[in-house]
Amino acid sequence: MNKGLFITLEGPEGAGKTTASVEIKKKLEALGYDVMLTREPGGIKIAEKIREVILDPSHTEMDSRTEALLYAAARRQHLAEKVKPALDAGKVVLCDRFIDSSLAYQGYARGLGIDEVWSINQFAIGSMMPDCTLYFDISPEDGLKRIEQNAGREVNRLDLEGMAFHQKVYEGYQILQERFPDRMRRIDASASLKDVTAEAVGILSDMLKNQH
Amino acid sequence: MNKGLFITLEGPEGAGKTTASVEIKKKLEALGYDVMLTREPGGIKIAEKIREVILDPSHTEMDSRTEALLYAAARRQHLAEKVKPALDAGKVVLCDRFIDSSLAYQGYARGLGIDEVWSINQFAIGSMMPDCTLYFDISPEDGLKRIEQNAGREVNRLDLEGMAFHQKVYEGYQILQERFPDRMRRIDASASLKDVTAEAVGILSDMLKNQH
Repeated sequence: MNKGLFITLEGPEGAGKTTASVEIKKKLEALGYDVMLTREPGGIKIAEKIREVILDPSHTEMDSRTEALLYAAARRQHLAEKVKPALDAGKVVLCDRFIDSSLAYQGYARGLGIDEVWSINQFAIGSMMPDCTLYFDISPEDGLKRIEQNAGREVNRLDLEGMAFHQKVYEGYQILQERFPDRMRRIDASASLKDVTAEAVGILSDMLKNQH
Repeated sequence: MNKGLFITLEGPEGAGKTTASVEIKKKLEALGYDVMLTREPGGIKIAEKIREVILDPSHTEMDSRTEALLYAAARRQHLAEKVKPALDAGKVVLCDRFIDSSLAYQGYARGLGIDEVWSINQFAIGSMMPDCTLYFDISPEDGLKRIEQNAGREVNRLDLEGMAFHQKVYEGYQILQERFPDRMRRIDASASLKDVTAEAVGILSDMLKNQH
């Protein structure tokens, strides 16, 4: 029985992951693969409920460790109910943001500690680490510029954080790249959508060919 | 500045902790101590919301790791918003169930692993481990008998689990006692309420005298 391939897409705000992920899915499907594109909480009822608790604007007293535990809880449920069944069915799963977002944002940029946030996510994920992570590399300046230019996209709370925070997220991802050199594959996200897609599909189709 | 004392009460269902905690509070207050009695989620809005997600009967797909992460998240928020301020104000905090319940129930009895559940609770608690834990020791048979006799108490989901589960919880607490011999103080919970209260107050007033 074939086991699917678990791919995550990571990078700072404005790196173009979400747009590219749709194109990557299309290209892989054209190559004959069965692809599921998802993003936490991904329509999973319990994960959506948890996300509501995180995002409720009246929850001003939210402790940063509580928040990190809630993200890990939503991650676990999305993984158990949506990602695992798809992988078991032999699909290629593209997941827009996953553990590395928590490590870079909460662990490094918010200062909770990469190792500390790793420990709770390790519990959440168990043995289900991604087979490969496409890291969309873009400088904080270029990322913010893209967000500002992209009128079709709603500006969210994280976009409005200061440049210092975006710089920290960028540094966090650099550290993760050094820590997970085999799993994380860097993509130059300052390139055109066409080139970014081609690079990502090249990496993934090589992996898929070697797997089967 | 005085720092308060953080006491947790632990034990299987039917050990009489909750009834005894009210008496212990009264006695300590009569000795002149400022005491706060609490129990997660303890009226803390975010913790209550998290508990609603855990207990929602429609959430039949709840993964056991998701559940453990949610308990840890509610614990963190209750600790940050209610326990820590009380300790900072110099109070004696009596908390009915805390980390050891997760270790015994989820970690051991449900089979997630004591070390695994410890790791996420370590993250939730940080440096705020209890100064002392009163462990209400009662055999699973006697605990269940008490629950059946106690008409005033609502029977909950855990009461209805089979005897094998209650036996596992009991074993879990035995393991924790061996692991934390200094922190956990055993109380014979098969004794009368009066004797149990006296033993608990004896232990705590000794600690309080030595502290000041």
